Amino acid sequence: MTEPSTSGAAAERSTGIEGSSSGTDAGITAGTSAGTSAGTSAGTSASALALQDPVYAEAVVDLLGAVAYGELSAFERLAQDARMAPDLRDKAELAGMAAIEVGHFERLSEYLAALGADPIAAMAPFVQAFDDFHVRTASSDWLEGLVTAYVGDGLAADFYSEIAEFLDADTRRVIIESLRDMGNAEFVVDRVRAAIDRDHRVAGRLALWGRRLMGEALTQAQRVAAERDALSALLAGGVDRPGLDLAAISRLFTRLTENHTKRMDNLGLDA
Amino acid sequence: MTEPSTSGAAAERSTGIEGSSSGTDAGITAGTSAGTSAGTSAGTSASALALQDPVYAEAVVDLLGAVAYGELSAFERLAQDARMAPDLRDKAELAGMAAIEVGHFERLSEYLAALGADPIAAMAPFVQAFDDFHVRTASSDWLEGLVTAYVGDGLAADFYSEIAEFLDADTRRVIIESLRDMGNAEFVVDRVRAAIDRDHRVAGRLALWGRRLMGEALTQAQRVAAERDALSALLAGGVDRPGLDLAAISRLFTRLTENHTKRMDNLGLDA
Repeated sequence: MTEPSTSGAAAERSTGIEGSSSGTDAGITAGTSAGTSAGTSAGTSASALALQDPVYAEAVVDLLGAVAYGELSAFERLAQDARMAPDLRDKAELAGMAAIEVGHFERLSEYLAALGADPIAAMAPFVQAFDDFHVRTASSDWLEGLVTAYVGDGLAADFYSEIAEFLDADTRRVIIESLRDMGNAEFVVDRVRAAIDRDHRVAGRLALWGRRLMGEALTQAQRVAAERDALSALLAGGVDRPGLDLAAISRLFTRLTENHTKRMDNLGLDA
Repeated sequence: MTEPSTSGAAAERSTGIEGSSSGTDAGITAGTSAGTSAGTSAGTSASALALQDPVYAEAVVDLLGAVAYGELSAFERLAQDARMAPDLRDKAELAGMAAIEVGHFERLSEYLAALGADPIAAMAPFVQAFDDFHVRTASSDWLEGLVTAYVGDGLAADFYSEIAEFLDADTRRVIIESLRDMGNAEFVVDRVRAAIDRDHRVAGRLALWGRRLMGEALTQAQRVAAERDALSALLAGGVDRPGLDLAAISRLFTRLTENHTKRMDNLGLDA
């Protein structure tokens, strides 16, 4: 029950991607510490310079649009799942988690607007993939909803933190901050473990559910990567930017899978 | 389109209830200005003294429980209605409104806890009335949802501000603050008026909807008043507290109705 917040774990973890791992902490703590000022200030000069490259800027807007819509659709899902809460206390917990997603969404929108992008237009290309994910993984009960919040948010946080390594300091900071306080890990772990204690058969059903979540998430992520050239180009790197070769991509997936397994284990579930 | 926020209008309006109208502004601005500190500080000595009366304290916990559950259920409703949004921009607006309700709910919970009350237990007596209201007024489309948010939140804000007149300064401030930023009036007025411009028949349907909301709200409010003795006693006043006689209650309903009519008029609807 001492599990730290999912996003915190993802943010603090050293990813070890070549050429970028040592810069992470400096990047996150650099600049202003207030979340909202990031969206309105012009940013550091290094970030401003990086964003002058139109190909890079397009990729950043794409990525921020994906993260922003991810938060908005996570809000909808948590609010929907809150309706299945067994009592008022649990309903209030999920409502709080949903509200946090909206706060993150609003900060990302501000940052997008500060970059001169229309947040709504930036999100549009990702609506279908996220909506499909949520339709295919609609919770049929309260516990499935909790596992989705924990496992899904954790996976998303891991993935975005990895990508954030390739970004300018300002954008990286906005993304990392938007992944904070997600998934309310302790609450979810407590409720899922208690349910398994009451009825051990729950563990088998939820383990299957976790595997399904992972599969659907990978399916939609691949679809997005195939459709969005700018995002793929970002991952591939450029003359002046480190990128991911096939071996690095393989290691990234290994890390994502390992963290997923750890989260399932925290819940008392086989991955 | 220059309509101020619903809650702001309610909070600033002088209610004119005898013996308490002049104290409002002083009460709201007294004490610490930060919202969260209200829940954790011991409060002003006058408030602390008032809350030593167990009958009064019970009524305050009742009232705060009602307001808190009202916010939580408004969150659920707004989140549900966000699913019917015609586009991402409108969805994001409603998500923002829903998140604001959660923030208010959390501050009320903190204040209840600081008073030594269990927020969950305080809310419990009001769950049925609010849930019944929402079941009976479930939106069948986006516009109905907007009218409910505007008219329902406005009515609730008016009602609670009136009752807040009878409370100690700390409690009054917490309640008034919890009514701020509700209903995002400008956004709703804009969308409803635009829909009427596109198709005038919409106005007749939504006018009926507004009347139904008012009727259902009064039904549930009466039910709560009949069931909760402490709350009724609060309104009736005591030796050292002003209360509402029948004439004053009648004037209160007149004011609520007048404000409702004004809000309907803002939307371009007959009350």
